[in-house]
Amino acid sequence: MTDLLSKLTVLKALFEKDKWSLRELSWRTGISEERLMEVINELSGNYVVQRDEGLVAIASSDNPAKIKPWGWNIYHELIVGSTQVYARGLVPWSIVVAEHQLHGYGRHKRMWESNLGGIWATAVISLPADKSPYLNIAIPLTLQRVLRRIGVKAWIKWPNDIVVEERKLGGTLIEGVALQDSMTVYIGVGINVNNDIGIPEATSLKRIVGLTPRNRVLAPFIGYLTRVTKLVSEPSELVDEYLSNLITLNRVIVAETIDGIIEGKAVEVDEYGSLIVSTKNGVEVKLEPWRVIRLRHGD
Amino acid sequence: MTDLLSKLTVLKALFEKDKWSLRELSWRTGISEERLMEVINELSGNYVVQRDEGLVAIASSDNPAKIKPWGWNIYHELIVGSTQVYARGLVPWSIVVAEHQLHGYGRHKRMWESNLGGIWATAVISLPADKSPYLNIAIPLTLQRVLRRIGVKAWIKWPNDIVVEERKLGGTLIEGVALQDSMTVYIGVGINVNNDIGIPEATSLKRIVGLTPRNRVLAPFIGYLTRVTKLVSEPSELVDEYLSNLITLNRVIVAETIDGIIEGKAVEVDEYGSLIVSTKNGVEVKLEPWRVIRLRHGD
Repeated sequence: MTDLLSKLTVLKALFEKDKWSLRELSWRTGISEERLMEVINELSGNYVVQRDEGLVAIASSDNPAKIKPWGWNIYHELIVGSTQVYARGLVPWSIVVAEHQLHGYGRHKRMWESNLGGIWATAVISLPADKSPYLNIAIPLTLQRVLRRIGVKAWIKWPNDIVVEERKLGGTLIEGVALQDSMTVYIGVGINVNNDIGIPEATSLKRIVGLTPRNRVLAPFIGYLTRVTKLVSEPSELVDEYLSNLITLNRVIVAETIDGIIEGKAVEVDEYGSLIVSTKNGVEVKLEPWRVIRLRHGD
Repeated sequence: MTDLLSKLTVLKALFEKDKWSLRELSWRTGISEERLMEVINELSGNYVVQRDEGLVAIASSDNPAKIKPWGWNIYHELIVGSTQVYARGLVPWSIVVAEHQLHGYGRHKRMWESNLGGIWATAVISLPADKSPYLNIAIPLTLQRVLRRIGVKAWIKWPNDIVVEERKLGGTLIEGVALQDSMTVYIGVGINVNNDIGIPEATSLKRIVGLTPRNRVLAPFIGYLTRVTKLVSEPSELVDEYLSNLITLNRVIVAETIDGIIEGKAVEVDEYGSLIVSTKNGVEVKLEPWRVIRLRHGD
């Protein structure tokens, strides 16, 4: 963990200036050049680090502060408690990207591991309140599209996860505050890009396609969000695309809900993102995303 | 240690702006208000934290960035490897103060514990090369003077420590680089102000006089350094004052030196800061500060 502090200290400097000589970086951080080399070597496993003629840099394409999406405010932070909490202080069309979260969380406030090298971000958008339920399908779909575009065979696992070969690559989280007809929505995303992963059920882009500059994912994702209002104006098209990329469809599922366990076959998803499950005794049950704590494929 | 990260994250924000409401601080750090209260409570044990009408602040008098000593550049950093290494990149009449050191060190590169709430700083000065040896006595003396001024019965323990009731309160470290007739000197100080202390042989201002705003020590110390050239122009007066505040004088000492152990009675200090020891067999030995790794009082 002291190691994490060293990494964060060096990262801070690397994000501060485009290129550093080792000597200047040593002066900036107060870390000896020898130790600095070790830290940079370790960081190279989780960031696209460029080393050229004695200079060291984090690739622009891996630096979230280098994206300048039109109409958006970007906040790039080294450490935050949670990007979801941070985002509460931001106006719509802002996004915060953090290198490290102290208490990152996912759905149902479950702890979300946020090691160095991933994308931990929350975007704030605003849209008509009656359109906001469609985000349940639009957001995971958007992330899945972005990943497909960079050649990753990504699927949606209901309700809001992205999986590759049945392993979790990322997740999305949607929280909102309504104000009259308008809804401010806090869209959290966690994507395992180049971060090291402690759990066998998860995977990362690093494992699948190798070290990946994060802006290759982040920039098109923000691009889709810019057009989100248009996207949710055709919910039936969204549902079709969502279903055709839903790995959960036609699978046997076991859902842990706030009212107990439900088992059955996933047969449909409606435009609000609810899953229709056909249970053993022939009854169809509708599972709203917020009711489900955990879902696993039973086959 | 995650806890240290939370504290550092909140500290960063607190030093960034004069006053915060809890809500805004939560937005700035991404830490929930509830968790924030806990972190602030803990920080209040190591910093002069002010809480008034729902606002929270670190007292200006405890914020090193608020000192504006004439002719000096002040660098206030949250985390550095070591202030001594950081200072290598600074021009003379600069000072760096860090809240946390990753690998703080003292004499003979011994690890120096640098918990939150102390003064961990390095000042860069320049003076004629022939005057620089007098700093060995001038610097500890200066620090001792500052502490006496705020009512602490501080003594010098040879060569460069400050003790109160035989317990270590602080230490100084002098490293230099000569360039022709001029010497650039890196003066490191570590002072246990409000930091928690893990070892029984040490003490802190918090223990002795209660929570102390660090600038009460830092500002006059920098003031003395401004006049250091004048100070070292009268080495014999310096020696007199040094000796009259030297707790080591006339004591039996056991010195671990780079050439072995030396035992005897400390009888004198010369103007270069060397200790004259009268050994059992009646021989006088001169101990230069740099030769001595560790010294303890044997009586």
